[in-house]
Amino acid sequence: MPSERSPLSSSASDLVSGALTGDDPGHEIVSAGVRGQLAPGSPAEVALAEVVGSVRGLSGEAAEAARLRDSRLTKPPGSLGRIESLCVQLAAIAGVSPAPTPEPAVVVVFAADHGVHAEGVSPWPQDVTAQMVAGFCRGGAAINVIARANGLGVRVVNAGVATPLSDHELLVNRPVRAGSRNLRVEAALTRAEAATAALLGVEVGTRLVEDHGARCLLTGDMGIANTTPSAALVAAFTGSAAAEVTGRGTGIDDATLAVKTQVVADALARLAGRPPLEPLDPLGVLAEVGGLEIAGLAGLCLAGAAARVPVVVDGVIALAGALVACALQPAVAGYLIAGHRSVEPAASRALDHLGLAPLLDLDLRLGEGTGAALAYPLVRAAALVAAEMATFDDLGIDA
Amino acid sequence: MPSERSPLSSSASDLVSGALTGDDPGHEIVSAGVRGQLAPGSPAEVALAEVVGSVRGLSGEAAEAARLRDSRLTKPPGSLGRIESLCVQLAAIAGVSPAPTPEPAVVVVFAADHGVHAEGVSPWPQDVTAQMVAGFCRGGAAINVIARANGLGVRVVNAGVATPLSDHELLVNRPVRAGSRNLRVEAALTRAEAATAALLGVEVGTRLVEDHGARCLLTGDMGIANTTPSAALVAAFTGSAAAEVTGRGTGIDDATLAVKTQVVADALARLAGRPPLEPLDPLGVLAEVGGLEIAGLAGLCLAGAAARVPVVVDGVIALAGALVACALQPAVAGYLIAGHRSVEPAASRALDHLGLAPLLDLDLRLGEGTGAALAYPLVRAAALVAAEMATFDDLGIDA
Repeated sequence: MPSERSPLSSSASDLVSGALTGDDPGHEIVSAGVRGQLAPGSPAEVALAEVVGSVRGLSGEAAEAARLRDSRLTKPPGSLGRIESLCVQLAAIAGVSPAPTPEPAVVVVFAADHGVHAEGVSPWPQDVTAQMVAGFCRGGAAINVIARANGLGVRVVNAGVATPLSDHELLVNRPVRAGSRNLRVEAALTRAEAATAALLGVEVGTRLVEDHGARCLLTGDMGIANTTPSAALVAAFTGSAAAEVTGRGTGIDDATLAVKTQVVADALARLAGRPPLEPLDPLGVLAEVGGLEIAGLAGLCLAGAAARVPVVVDGVIALAGALVACALQPAVAGYLIAGHRSVEPAASRALDHLGLAPLLDLDLRLGEGTGAALAYPLVRAAALVAAEMATFDDLGIDA
Repeated sequence: MPSERSPLSSSASDLVSGALTGDDPGHEIVSAGVRGQLAPGSPAEVALAEVVGSVRGLSGEAAEAARLRDSRLTKPPGSLGRIESLCVQLAAIAGVSPAPTPEPAVVVVFAADHGVHAEGVSPWPQDVTAQMVAGFCRGGAAINVIARANGLGVRVVNAGVATPLSDHELLVNRPVRAGSRNLRVEAALTRAEAATAALLGVEVGTRLVEDHGARCLLTGDMGIANTTPSAALVAAFTGSAAAEVTGRGTGIDDATLAVKTQVVADALARLAGRPPLEPLDPLGVLAEVGGLEIAGLAGLCLAGAAARVPVVVDGVIALAGALVACALQPAVAGYLIAGHRSVEPAASRALDHLGLAPLLDLDLRLGEGTGAALAYPLVRAAALVAAEMATFDDLGIDA
């Protein structure tokens, strides 16, 4: 557990020194404090602040050593493009050059339901979430196949599916509540619920690293209607309008898209009354217009950064969680690797905001972590290139 | 060997029914015949025509079966984007749905030197070609590392390195000649040499499939200065000007780029005296401004298509070879999967001309087959998705 790993740092103390805003900050959260502020309104929030404070920046020394090593490898400088920058990032993350191979690696699929489903934003019935989780446990879903293909483990986390789920060895079955509330008309979560779900993500990620030796975490998600809260979060954190971030998800018609866009607009209006929004209170924004799997994903990003392992993020749901994590702790961004560019418009907004360049652009819009899992071999190959390639000295070539 | 596998087909007979133009067609090749014409001026050319005639089109029936199967997998239709179109292509190539997993897979790295190196088009000394081939055999080059990372075999083919190479178990050591001639001032190869190098590629590819059970071929290349003939070939086959296709290769300064562009322009002027060129005689164009490893790569593309296995093509060198193969036999294009978009401008021209959308865009410009090898896990994952994913019926979901 994070609280056993590191004492509350001074930066964490700074983060929690703001005003107490309690569990229901309402609309005022938007202008209630400084960027990245956490208010210790609940034990979960205190614990989350501790994790946020434990994240350290990347190692500039290891990055420089990786650049130097790269320059001696038997290839023209720069000729491996993004693979080379990945090598450097992996070294900077691990704090050593060459970086360890990022394996074992695990896709963590956070699942939850969303009260906003009642607004008709998705063509899929809500119980598909639970059915797909059962499918993940059986091993026949896209993420299972791609994970097996690429040597990845799969862990599923029930962060808040609407119906009770049977226990399974692959499932961390700890729903914070049975789905979020309808974000169009009320806060989706209380601050405490949001913090608890984020901490669940922190705990799962931390245990995978500490107890299971994971050296790379990948984000996955399942939640019917979850592109709606993701769009709202991306709008809030990037200062975008509803129409700029609302997409067709896994596939909706024009009429449903119009409804969905209005739902996002209403949520944003309820959140602050005025765009562009200033996400001064990341946890408050998450609680207002987010969701439980998104909170878990934010926690996973924090856990990876705190443990100095790379986190390969999937599409728009993961990016919404990453925005929360990076708003709480900007240093998290250095630990993130964008697996792919989702076709959802909010994904590109979030990528730009986070300064992330995706590895793949394959018109994916499935979720589950499939884009991250498909990108993983590139990350692994980058680490192996840095570790195993011969140098010009080895070959006796004067270059 | 191809000639033992299939009788000369009627389409091959059509192809070789044109006028004999001999081994030195000179400038007239450009207007000497119909598109795709081969003239049986040498035994190699006769054998090559036979391979060209043995290529069949993709299976529309298998493609349709793959689309139907895809529509029943537990995901929203289209949500796996390019992965889904890969599934369909793989089925169409193999003639069965779901397609077999494309493994074992082998990267075939064709190596050769280029007389045009004397013009100062590359900052690297010519003997780096031989040194890198030795590096491939030792297993420490980028392609070796990436191939190991992704479960690929490596085969190296000396199609025409300037200096003699020691035999090695990974090396097919059959140089057609000790490097090509200087394409700025004379034909780089005779027609017979070009056909012989192409047949070498056919033979290596065919043997990998028939004798070693390869179910996927990947293209690789090594040849100091080989972006120059590649640019010339792409210009000739796409009707582009020298300045539109000439790039910085693995890294040259502005002055060298200017020299290189003029060299390509001179070669094109020598070839036809007028842009845009019409590549009426693919083998003649290959002989005039190509190279021996490019000819081998063209042959590998033909072999893959003839054997109905996918060919994952790398960057601009491979695409130059693919243009030759597809000019000889348009049906080859359906068997090609573009691994990545090289930063070389000629690569994008060739991709557009061939109608190929690359899987990766990672600013790669190394060659060796690294872009194809990095893309391979996507191809493999696509096949596994089609073969292993559960259907909605399996999960009891009504969709």
